[in-house]
Amino acid sequence: MSDAEPPDSSAPRNPLGLTVVLGRDRPIRLDCGVEMGPVTVGYQTYGTLNADRSNAILMCHALTGDQYVADPHPITGKPGWWNELVGPGRVFDTDRYFLICSNVLGGCMGTTGPKDVNPATGKPWGLSFPVITIGDMVQVQARLLDHLGIDQVFCVVGGSMGGMQVLEWCASYPERVFSAIPIATAARHSAQNIAFNEVGRQAIAADPDWKDGDYLAHGTLPQRGLAVARMAAHITYLSEPALHRKFGRNLQGREAFSYGFEADFQVESYLRHQGSTFVERFDANSYLYITRAMDYFDLAAEHGGILSNAFRGTKTRFCVISFTSDWLFPTPESRAVVHALNAVAANVSFVEVCSDKGHDAFLLDEPVLHATLTGFLDGAAEHRGLPRAKGVSS
Amino acid sequence: MSDAEPPDSSAPRNPLGLTVVLGRDRPIRLDCGVEMGPVTVGYQTYGTLNADRSNAILMCHALTGDQYVADPHPITGKPGWWNELVGPGRVFDTDRYFLICSNVLGGCMGTTGPKDVNPATGKPWGLSFPVITIGDMVQVQARLLDHLGIDQVFCVVGGSMGGMQVLEWCASYPERVFSAIPIATAARHSAQNIAFNEVGRQAIAADPDWKDGDYLAHGTLPQRGLAVARMAAHITYLSEPALHRKFGRNLQGREAFSYGFEADFQVESYLRHQGSTFVERFDANSYLYITRAMDYFDLAAEHGGILSNAFRGTKTRFCVISFTSDWLFPTPESRAVVHALNAVAANVSFVEVCSDKGHDAFLLDEPVLHATLTGFLDGAAEHRGLPRAKGVSS
Repeated sequence: MSDAEPPDSSAPRNPLGLTVVLGRDRPIRLDCGVEMGPVTVGYQTYGTLNADRSNAILMCHALTGDQYVADPHPITGKPGWWNELVGPGRVFDTDRYFLICSNVLGGCMGTTGPKDVNPATGKPWGLSFPVITIGDMVQVQARLLDHLGIDQVFCVVGGSMGGMQVLEWCASYPERVFSAIPIATAARHSAQNIAFNEVGRQAIAADPDWKDGDYLAHGTLPQRGLAVARMAAHITYLSEPALHRKFGRNLQGREAFSYGFEADFQVESYLRHQGSTFVERFDANSYLYITRAMDYFDLAAEHGGILSNAFRGTKTRFCVISFTSDWLFPTPESRAVVHALNAVAANVSFVEVCSDKGHDAFLLDEPVLHATLTGFLDGAAEHRGLPRAKGVSS
Repeated sequence: MSDAEPPDSSAPRNPLGLTVVLGRDRPIRLDCGVEMGPVTVGYQTYGTLNADRSNAILMCHALTGDQYVADPHPITGKPGWWNELVGPGRVFDTDRYFLICSNVLGGCMGTTGPKDVNPATGKPWGLSFPVITIGDMVQVQARLLDHLGIDQVFCVVGGSMGGMQVLEWCASYPERVFSAIPIATAARHSAQNIAFNEVGRQAIAADPDWKDGDYLAHGTLPQRGLAVARMAAHITYLSEPALHRKFGRNLQGREAFSYGFEADFQVESYLRHQGSTFVERFDANSYLYITRAMDYFDLAAEHGGILSNAFRGTKTRFCVISFTSDWLFPTPESRAVVHALNAVAANVSFVEVCSDKGHDAFLLDEPVLHATLTGFLDGAAEHRGLPRAKGVSS
């Protein structure tokens, strides 16, 4: 079925991830009109695909995430972004489910993106890489599922931009999605979110080392601009109460103000650290392309201006999740999705998790989130006829 | 009383503002310990000081404001930041009050700041300029009042960083302030606000044209970094609903996505414009110093950790004003000030204005704000024994 043997939960993992080349014979037609192929897709799997290929969960990563959901990051060595949720008996139970996560199109962790060589020119794509959309990312994921021989996933799940992909999946391939969990997301990027992304892009473009996107040819890296972009974005991932609780006005390793421009405050030091570590693992042009894809996302606009049209006739079971302190993708954005689903009589649960951790709550230790995911997956699994978790009697 | 004749409301204004040199004989001792002097102060006045010098209103400008409250800006030609509020019969009635506004210490519109020449070296201060505080700004304003022969101002008023100065005035010179109006402000800068300022500073420092602050000697200007700083900050001045109402996801002069990195969305175009016009009128090092002063501001910390200690024994009449949609200086920050004032039995009114315009509401056409200001000033004027407005019978 596949060029890669999906490891079962007890099998050794492939820490460098898996890779497949897609679209060799049939190029991928992007929303911008460009036909692209071949496209390399970097992905990772956990658990074992069952005999009738009905237990696959597609996990969609966020803007700066990647396929290393539950592996040490190949560059930073840090644990995967949902490390605690993946494994035998865990929320995403590798004894029951076959988990797949692929790096998005335009990314920089193994899937074709602007830092890769354009086979037509022999040079890095840079800004000649076509502008991609959330729909394009999902189309590539659909090709990956074709390759893996999976007609329908049991569930597609993701937070933030990952949640946009979940919604796009449900709209574009409804018959391929048994259940869906969009978390901390929206059916369209708001003006404020576009504005924050634009600040990040302008910070990158302001860096002379960016060289109009052609930095690889010049042997430079726009790390200062990318770090500023990351810092600005990082603030939006947290809540004011979380920042206050975590840092307040505490000074960093000093008793009094320096009366200078060093990082006097812990929050400054933290932000600088976020910026400087990010540039080690992320490509600046990928940041431009992926933020652009988020800004372009508007599921209602793709369906005649009426969001519920995107879900008309859906048989997918939905669990929509938001967080009270998330001001980047606030609860009203999730509620709009729920209302649209209600309007077409979809099967939908909606949980607003009370948390002061802001947008990043979906990546953090939030017991209510984890309980919600487990409960919804258990119920959906029963409907799908998947076996119960080990140790749970009927 | 003064080297400059304050113009009355009918007198021709001085569009370039007034200037005075202070601290020649007695240097100004800054919070960092440095003694500074002479210091040039650029200021502007409106209306006429009355015979007993009891009708002065000190207006404190915000981070990127200046003394041109109600004059065309000397560089941009745009109307002053409170243009509509100043004049005969207006909120700040120049028939009744003598208005004073000075550019803050560290600024770039006439008051000594990092772009000026350090008399000791004959070269621009740059980063050798001492790090200043809100207290230092207020101290220089107090010297200006000494110079103008004003012992006590009838009112000190300002929004945002201007409001910080108002609070500092009331704490440091309580006997010199008859009434005070801190608007859309806080008694200390929050971790989130420090974080946003730090992003702006890092954006400036990331610009190679900044030259470690020594750009004037190099004949460069860190305009790209300063523009990014402005863009990031500007988002925080608006509310999400205001951005949505003003721009939504509207495209800028096009019918469809460009699938490129031009400013497809109106909100992008608007932000870029904010960035590019700002750099024409503002000095990058001033931006560093003034944001630092805001971050250092913590009135409770200056008074043993108890905010009410800052106001103990105050006879000043307070009107504290906040806006419902201001997420940079949200209402709880104003409420903390009100609680501290209540704890020392101060005379305080508190108005939370319902507005969706965000932090910038204090600069915009907000009838409830204007009515609140007029009402409070009328009441305070009566207590101060100032004559009623023209045409108002007793």
